[in-house]
Amino acid sequence: MSIACALCDAPGGRVVLQAPHWRIVHAQEAGFPAFYRLVWQQHVREFSQLAPADRAECMETLVVMEQAMLRHLQPEKVNLAALGNAVPHLHWHVIGRYTWDSHFPGAVWAQPQRSEDPARLQALEARLPAFEQELLGALPQRP
Amino acid sequence: MSIACALCDAPGGRVVLQAPHWRIVHAQEAGFPAFYRLVWQQHVREFSQLAPADRAECMETLVVMEQAMLRHLQPEKVNLAALGNAVPHLHWHVIGRYTWDSHFPGAVWAQPQRSEDPARLQALEARLPAFEQELLGALPQRP
Repeated sequence: MSIACALCDAPGGRVVLQAPHWRIVHAQEAGFPAFYRLVWQQHVREFSQLAPADRAECMETLVVMEQAMLRHLQPEKVNLAALGNAVPHLHWHVIGRYTWDSHFPGAVWAQPQRSEDPARLQALEARLPAFEQELLGALPQRP
Repeated sequence: MSIACALCDAPGGRVVLQAPHWRIVHAQEAGFPAFYRLVWQQHVREFSQLAPADRAECMETLVVMEQAMLRHLQPEKVNLAALGNAVPHLHWHVIGRYTWDSHFPGAVWAQPQRSEDPARLQALEARLPAFEQELLGALPQRP
């Protein structure tokens, strides 16, 4: 008997990279081009339920993502979050935030504070391939 | 010349524990009794800007907080988040969430989904001292 889980049954976004223990997906959330997720492959509910070596691997992968994001996408701030209330399968949101984005300085889950800026969103989207290319070069991949 | 920072100038909540590198505070956010913060003592903007040993210490402290919360407060889900858009001084939100809370399964920063439940909030508040006592026993403290 299996319980349906959105992150066991589907990638949860456009797959950028598959590693043995986790995958990185582009979240494709409208208004936030620099929104990625690090999804643990195995169904685990809470971060602290990972074995210590797995926690360290997860955290260091988040750090690689954040540092590459800071270099390539120059966000005002990076947001890291493992919530999982709706989908209790361990996944980290890694979101580059900008003073001009629709919700800044609120959380992306809060009410918008201004309209989207199509020109800036498009310019940011154009820089995602270089960011993703760095991730592909820096991180292990599933054979 | 110093730039004012809300987490350099004030604790950011009721202090539960001060360690050399970080402090744990109770966030005292209405409607969310199980809302704590792990605040890095030094002014650092992004998690990835910590030295590797400091990142590991920070992460393992989050794990102690999460595991103690699961044991003592039995949340439906723990939410971990380092946002810092408004106050870009590294701090992690550690929030125990419940199916009956005003925002579940939404983020605490989203719109409420139902009214607060005073009886359940009060019952949860009564269990915080045992949780905090475990943290004091499990974690290092500044002399």
